[in-house]
Amino acid sequence: MVDFDELVEKVITGEIKLHQVERYTNGDKRLATEIRRRALEKKFGVSLENIGHYSIDPERVIGKNIENMIGVVQIPMGVAGPLKINGEYAKGEFYIPLATTEGALVASVNRGCSALTAAGGVKTTIIDDKMTRAPLLKCPDARRAREVAEWVKANIEYLQEKAVSKVTRHGKLRDVKPHIVGNNLYLRFEFETGDAMGMNMVTISSEEIMKVIEEEFPDVKYLALSGNLCVDKKPNAMNFINGRGKTVIAEAIIPREIVEKKLKTTPELIAEVNYRKNLVGSAQAGSYGFNAHFANIVGAIFLATGQDEAQITEGSHGITLAEVTPEGDLYISVTMPSLEIGTVGGGTRVPTQREALSIMGVAGGGEPPGTNARKFAEIIAGAVLAGELSLLAAIAAKHLAKAHAELGR
Amino acid sequence: MVDFDELVEKVITGEIKLHQVERYTNGDKRLATEIRRRALEKKFGVSLENIGHYSIDPERVIGKNIENMIGVVQIPMGVAGPLKINGEYAKGEFYIPLATTEGALVASVNRGCSALTAAGGVKTTIIDDKMTRAPLLKCPDARRAREVAEWVKANIEYLQEKAVSKVTRHGKLRDVKPHIVGNNLYLRFEFETGDAMGMNMVTISSEEIMKVIEEEFPDVKYLALSGNLCVDKKPNAMNFINGRGKTVIAEAIIPREIVEKKLKTTPELIAEVNYRKNLVGSAQAGSYGFNAHFANIVGAIFLATGQDEAQITEGSHGITLAEVTPEGDLYISVTMPSLEIGTVGGGTRVPTQREALSIMGVAGGGEPPGTNARKFAEIIAGAVLAGELSLLAAIAAKHLAKAHAELGR
Amino acid sequence: MVDFDELVEKVITGEIKLHQVERYTNGDKRLATEIRRRALEKKFGVSLENIGHYSIDPERVIGKNIENMIGVVQIPMGVAGPLKINGEYAKGEFYIPLATTEGALVASVNRGCSALTAAGGVKTTIIDDKMTRAPLLKCPDARRAREVAEWVKANIEYLQEKAVSKVTRHGKLRDVKPHIVGNNLYLRFEFETGDAMGMNMVTISSEEIMKVIEEEFPDVKYLALSGNLCVDKKPNAMNFINGRGKTVIAEAIIPREIVEKKLKTTPELIAEVNYRKNLVGSAQAGSYGFNAHFANIVGAIFLATGQDEAQITEGSHGITLAEVTPEGDLYISVTMPSLEIGTVGGGTRVPTQREALSIMGVAGGGEPPGTNARKFAEIIAGAVLAGELSLLAAIAAKHLAKAHAELGR
Amino acid sequence: MVDFDELVEKVITGEIKLHQVERYTNGDKRLATEIRRRALEKKFGVSLENIGHYSIDPERVIGKNIENMIGVVQIPMGVAGPLKINGEYAKGEFYIPLATTEGALVASVNRGCSALTAAGGVKTTIIDDKMTRAPLLKCPDARRAREVAEWVKANIEYLQEKAVSKVTRHGKLRDVKPHIVGNNLYLRFEFETGDAMGMNMVTISSEEIMKVIEEEFPDVKYLALSGNLCVDKKPNAMNFINGRGKTVIAEAIIPREIVEKKLKTTPELIAEVNYRKNLVGSAQAGSYGFNAHFANIVGAIFLATGQDEAQITEGSHGITLAEVTPEGDLYISVTMPSLEIGTVGGGTRVPTQREALSIMGVAGGGEPPGTNARKFAEIIAGAVLAGELSLLAAIAAKHLAKAHAELGR
Repeated sequence: MVDFDELVEKVITGEIKLHQVERYTNGDKRLATEIRRRALEKKFGVSLENIGHYSIDPERVIGKNIENMIGVVQIPMGVAGPLKINGEYAKGEFYIPLATTEGALVASVNRGCSALTAAGGVKTTIIDDKMTRAPLLKCPDARRAREVAEWVKANIEYLQEKAVSKVTRHGKLRDVKPHIVGNNLYLRFEFETGDAMGMNMVTISSEEIMKVIEEEFPDVKYLALSGNLCVDKKPNAMNFINGRGKTVIAEAIIPREIVEKKLKTTPELIAEVNYRKNLVGSAQAGSYGFNAHFANIVGAIFLATGQDEAQITEGSHGITLAEVTPEGDLYISVTMPSLEIGTVGGGTRVPTQREALSIMGVAGGGEPPGTNARKFAEIIAGAVLAGELSLLAAIAAKHLAKAHAELGR
Repeated sequence: MVDFDELVEKVITGEIKLHQVERYTNGDKRLATEIRRRALEKKFGVSLENIGHYSIDPERVIGKNIENMIGVVQIPMGVAGPLKINGEYAKGEFYIPLATTEGALVASVNRGCSALTAAGGVKTTIIDDKMTRAPLLKCPDARRAREVAEWVKANIEYLQEKAVSKVTRHGKLRDVKPHIVGNNLYLRFEFETGDAMGMNMVTISSEEIMKVIEEEFPDVKYLALSGNLCVDKKPNAMNFINGRGKTVIAEAIIPREIVEKKLKTTPELIAEVNYRKNLVGSAQAGSYGFNAHFANIVGAIFLATGQDEAQITEGSHGITLAEVTPEGDLYISVTMPSLEIGTVGGGTRVPTQREALSIMGVAGGGEPPGTNARKFAEIIAGAVLAGELSLLAAIAAKHLAKAHAELGR
Repeated sequence: MVDFDELVEKVITGEIKLHQVERYTNGDKRLATEIRRRALEKKFGVSLENIGHYSIDPERVIGKNIENMIGVVQIPMGVAGPLKINGEYAKGEFYIPLATTEGALVASVNRGCSALTAAGGVKTTIIDDKMTRAPLLKCPDARRAREVAEWVKANIEYLQEKAVSKVTRHGKLRDVKPHIVGNNLYLRFEFETGDAMGMNMVTISSEEIMKVIEEEFPDVKYLALSGNLCVDKKPNAMNFINGRGKTVIAEAIIPREIVEKKLKTTPELIAEVNYRKNLVGSAQAGSYGFNAHFANIVGAIFLATGQDEAQITEGSHGITLAEVTPEGDLYISVTMPSLEIGTVGGGTRVPTQREALSIMGVAGGGEPPGTNARKFAEIIAGAVLAGELSLLAAIAAKHLAKAHAELGR
Repeated sequence: MVDFDELVEKVITGEIKLHQVERYTNGDKRLATEIRRRALEKKFGVSLENIGHYSIDPERVIGKNIENMIGVVQIPMGVAGPLKINGEYAKGEFYIPLATTEGALVASVNRGCSALTAAGGVKTTIIDDKMTRAPLLKCPDARRAREVAEWVKANIEYLQEKAVSKVTRHGKLRDVKPHIVGNNLYLRFEFETGDAMGMNMVTISSEEIMKVIEEEFPDVKYLALSGNLCVDKKPNAMNFINGRGKTVIAEAIIPREIVEKKLKTTPELIAEVNYRKNLVGSAQAGSYGFNAHFANIVGAIFLATGQDEAQITEGSHGITLAEVTPEGDLYISVTMPSLEIGTVGGGTRVPTQREALSIMGVAGGGEPPGTNARKFAEIIAGAVLAGELSLLAAIAAKHLAKAHAELGR
């Protein structure tokens, strides 16, 4: 029998390490979670009561999504909408769940949704859809690296059959873009990954591909599964230019009347703010984010829906355009080169996150595969457009600081 | 009296908008939260039961951290440690709370903590500490912009007294770095913000400063509170080079024996992986993240502790170095130029988040002010070092994919 | 009959504009050149005697390479070598002409050539070879832009036949990489251009392609022949990552003995300097030049051989690696992603420049076409490697400043 | 006595190396130049007759500007103007010498000068003026690096007196901006360098400063005079954001009538081209050159006037803005963050180059020192503005390709 207090003491003294607790609870993960939390409470003389308040099942998340679990963080979730989207996958009105602790954010997105929907909605277009992994090989020299690269380029189908198909049903090797730096070869593989964000899939697939390549080229040293040209979770020009995950654009034309009545400003002023701030200012900053706050909306949706929080980084890449049309209306668009998302796997399996996805009708796999993730990408892009429109309009009207003060961040 | 079902229906039909619900509940925010969630459940035929399971109080977060609240997202929280830190603010052994759904992450950081602590701990150094805001002014021409910039540079103390001191007790204007592009002037103000991350403080202060400047230079047009040279929530060279928030470095020397026994690899191989992946690979990617996965650790701590999730973006900036010392041991460091964090305000007030901060002894304001945030920055940098060490070592041993597969991401 | 003095006076007063002089000299371009120079001499009371000392023929360069000619600038030309190159196009020992006014540069490259040749020579590898042009089209929206892009991708051969083949015999459309930002479509066309650098060829070809596209898609507005995604003559991540012109790598292994005897330092120290300076330093600078001084050598060869001096910019992109081999020798390489050069056309026709090319055996077109330009690219890469090796070695030995001082720059 | 033919033979066989020839000519540098050229002619069976045609004196350039001299390259020089400049240093009408082999370039700049002068001229403003050098020190750890950095910041005047003043009369240490990456300290020193571009001056000064620092901090290892954070001759965000050399802006307002009559287009179309090409296109390219072709004009002036050709790289950094004013006219500006130039030293001493400077009245040192270089910077910026205006206007009118074709590049 497990003696709760005794185990707590042993964790406190370090006799039992944090990751060893499950060994003493007969594999009872919920109990182990309680023990760890209690140990910290006692050790530091603090209360972790709220962290201990959760409905998700430790049995199902420990080992899949978390280790050394002590409970959960509760992040407030709000919802913005309805937002009308005229996409190729998302069609109709949507409510967008946003988990954040930044006051005014949901309200701001909501205001943008309202203006966009009144204007007839957002048009969304997916330009590209791929997940990449770039293993790193050390070669005898660049000449040899080029030979390997050429062989790989000529053997995509062979590698799909010989390696990828053995480890995944959903992932498909689509192409490779090799980069050679001196004696280093980085093979940036591009995969189709269905409704999954796909990092796990492409990681396993690349590992399998490497076995084939190592056999074919024994003089080449396979050094790392990722050579940082994937690029995952780092701000970078590669993804900004060449894309990763979904490359998606959302656009709308907002009639002047709506800009004036709903947003209390003019198309000219919004265009000017976007020009001087998002284009010229970001240019001078050496930025890959020519936008006002993509990361805010991307971040809040990512948290709500179980996406990888570290990939907010690449989700912040992109360009906002705002222009006055010949008719005097406002054209506004967001171009998001590297939105890395999925509706299956990873954090999407956690109950609150899955519920959030269900609000948008994109929980789980799509039919045919990939359509749910694309629909989701279109919805995110639409929400990001709403966030940009709202903030630009607020700035145009010099209301940003006031809004922040009122909503007491 | 409030008729729950009737209100739910009206929200479903759109007669009552999401942000208007509180008007019909006599200001009862918890009830409004229930109504919104129920409305979504009925409208889309889904269950949002887990989202509705929370212990935080809607009365305290709505209007401060969230709007249109429907509940919370529960993100699993694990803990890594102990990690010994030899900082100027953080001294001793720490446990680091990490909220994530990425399997293997906590285990990986934990492994790094173990190796670092065995090696005598992490040395942390704060290089700079400031929060910035860069209002945008449109000037008649560059000559005039230069005049304004010079006046501002010469009047820092005046602006502190005349503007900043009127709106904040904690914020202090420290300096300004002007940037001029054609007829645009971007005044990148640098503030000290104590234990707060400080964005709200510097926003309000900058707004107040602008009033003084507008009065002084009536021919100059104050266009936006942020001209994207701050830079907030976008990947950019400005912060990467010139810093924002805390600029902090964590370092350690790991004896060869520990590298070999605990990490199952060699200093040479770790140094080589870091060189070819984090330096050469990131160079070729045009990256501001010369590291393996800063964003993973930064992200998990940010979520656990109520930091701004969108600022994971700048938290991912930085450089990892790994070298073999003359003695044959491993030197490893992380340089984080723009870690934007705080221990008061924003999401740190939410109970689960505050509890997570308390595990590290950094909840609330420090004595003197600023010391808690600096201590926290040192702990984060230490944890990031642990994460880098662990992943580099895992790659060195070609175990990355296997670890992912086993822990089933 | 032309009255020299009268014309000079009229140019001085502005009655005859600089570009109108040829109209008054019966098309005598040499005379017009003399008149313009004399006018400036008198107007400003200066002597331009040396500018007037030249052997190239104004009749042949005015209108092709220059307008409003007044003479020439004489830039001292030195030569470095011999440099042994083991390339696929360049095989044997070469002497490299360098035009510069920077003291110590030729000596430094010469020293590098000597060490490399003693070590058995440089191995060069051409990774890619293309010239790009990216016309800009404004589209009704991103959806339409994607349609246009897809049509173009599917019609490369058709466009080659229908457009490109009509205006050039040497240029061949190879591929297109479209980039869409909101309602803007940038079609980055890739061409093979034989021995020419190719900008003129791809400019004319792209103009012709645009006619076909404009006809096919009348709702799309062709706005500019270059939308700055080519990218020509600007520092940029696009070319750094995706290449332009020749992408070429030069490598060598220098035995430890040669490093010590000839270069007075060690492989370890050179590797360390390269690591801390060219990799870590350049990383922190947000650079696309992870090298010591590519631009110096590229620049001096470009001037000597009539390349486009503005393209020194992209020639400065690239990465230098220096490593200690398992055998204790020095591995060193330069990776040059965007070396834009040619052996025919443009400035290569000017006599001094053509003579400089002839020293390396690469004047004029190759057999088959393209081979001369590739040979030339290999020689440049070899010379750049020599320059890097020499400077890194000099730094390693702390001799840089002394060398500069002695040679009195 | 010197036997010409015998020496030529020995150079051909390699018995006498290229840099040894002067030893056999009793120090006669002109003769050595002839011998080297003749040796190459015979060795490769080519004529280098034009390279041998020069008026500059080998005795004066060998050892200062060139080694292993064989003659000169003659680059055609044209002149554009007059250009009216309303600067703080440059006041009046100027003719700009341009050395280039790119057909149409001088004509294009000339056209821009004409439009600008007709519009009342260019307003130029120098924002900053400094030359930088960033020595690299390896420190025991970051904590120590911070101590060194703080000491240096506190001892600028001491270092000026103790080190800088000993080696230069013209250079003055102004400030230092330290950057720390792990255990590496980069001290980016800022100097005033009068009329010299200043690289030599700051190199010698930094070397001297390092002696003081090495003595003060014996545990710190001074590794390289430049740690690539200067940044010299590499494209980089550091100089783009923080400036190097002259940071200068040129602006003009062109009345609509002039745009229409002289440039055959409209302010609206020029603004649109600039927006979609120079801002949006360059943004998507990850560029530090948000301009059309700074490098062309910078390059041609640099060659004509003896500037360092490798620094064309940083001269290409910068941003062009074009806007329609409320009055319907065209506002256009160029912002050049890092124009590294001088009127004394280096290549400015070579006769043709010095003559070119004299056309603009900026040959040699100014009174007071520094004013000539600033005047020169203003003229360059004005010329660059002319080049941008002309090309943007040409694009706007779709005349680029035609112009190129006609002038036969």
